[in-house]
Amino acid sequence: MASRGRFITLEGPEGAGKSTHLKALAARLEAEGIPVLCTREPGGTKLGEMVRNILQFDAAGESPVPRAELLLFLASRAQLVHHVIEPALARGEWVLSDRFCDSTFAYQGFGRGMNVAELQAINGFATGGLMPDLTLLLDIPQDESQARVSSRKGPVDRFEQERESFHTRLAEGFRQLARENPDRIHRIDSTGPQEATAAKIWEEVAPLVTSFNGGSLA
Amino acid sequence: MASRGRFITLEGPEGAGKSTHLKALAARLEAEGIPVLCTREPGGTKLGEMVRNILQFDAAGESPVPRAELLLFLASRAQLVHHVIEPALARGEWVLSDRFCDSTFAYQGFGRGMNVAELQAINGFATGGLMPDLTLLLDIPQDESQARVSSRKGPVDRFEQERESFHTRLAEGFRQLARENPDRIHRIDSTGPQEATAAKIWEEVAPLVTSFNGGSLA
Repeated sequence: MASRGRFITLEGPEGAGKSTHLKALAARLEAEGIPVLCTREPGGTKLGEMVRNILQFDAAGESPVPRAELLLFLASRAQLVHHVIEPALARGEWVLSDRFCDSTFAYQGFGRGMNVAELQAINGFATGGLMPDLTLLLDIPQDESQARVSSRKGPVDRFEQERESFHTRLAEGFRQLARENPDRIHRIDSTGPQEATAAKIWEEVAPLVTSFNGGSLA
Repeated sequence: MASRGRFITLEGPEGAGKSTHLKALAARLEAEGIPVLCTREPGGTKLGEMVRNILQFDAAGESPVPRAELLLFLASRAQLVHHVIEPALARGEWVLSDRFCDSTFAYQGFGRGMNVAELQAINGFATGGLMPDLTLLLDIPQDESQARVSSRKGPVDRFEQERESFHTRLAEGFRQLARENPDRIHRIDSTGPQEATAAKIWEEVAPLVTSFNGGSLA
């Protein structure tokens, strides 16, 4: 029987490079012979993609109130954990997710001002207690994040439209979560060239690969 | 300023006559000069109707897992409380809802086997603590409920498809909730003629009208 895979999440503000580095990390792990499954939140299941659509672009023609927003995110997460993440981990695959629970704590907690302890309890219900083995917080200065988002094509979602003070609370919230969970959340400065950030990410991930392979990189 | 309205919910298994009696009760209250707003769960808002569609007919092409199902119901409820129920109560209207929190406790708790105390806590988060002033549990024997549902036209939803043991747990769950909350939940035998049930419902509601009007029926 395959040993259980590892669960790694990438977190951080919009424009920090999460999806780019998720792909790069997946390729690097696969080069080490590790089977990888990539996913994202909200989404990652058929139900989750429907919820994503309600959440991001007001498909319903009315904005979800903060409590409804949180519960929709967690419904999508419950489906993703049950149908995708847990089965993959059980098969011995490594799961990389673009956002997971720390985005809830940062966006709904620090951003929207909801009680973080309460969010942690409800999140635990949604996930059945699953937490990432390692979380990489990609951190960049706020003006750089905003500049990267502004240069993107396509529609602007509800969170991108939030005012500057929301994004300041969000970035500070992510950093506070990293300080409070130093064993799990590793903060990575994502301001320099892409290769430099990728190298820092690999430094954090390599020890997990070594222990997973019983002591050696491929 | 109008005094705050009253919040009455109708609960019970499918086929117990909730929607029929909700309409009849609304008409009777309006005849007493009371402004009434009728709603239903899941649904009642644009967002809620989208969620209702995911929940009832597997529009996503995959069934929600029990935890996702619960969180979708509560997202719809949070939106309904904030956008519809609380504003109406504040305007002095009476709100009648076809299902509310007791359906969560009965379906997801007793039916699906989730922890009822945990459900109550998450429900409290979704509603901001709002509870009905009065809940009417329309109760009929299970074979009669099933017969009424079978005779209906239109598509069969996910709950109607559940096996008999689920519906037995559900009916027993509603009765247990009524025993545990005797001040709020009044059980009404809905087996006889419609007029007889309507008369029993009015007996339960009339005292609220009297106290609302400061001592007299219109």
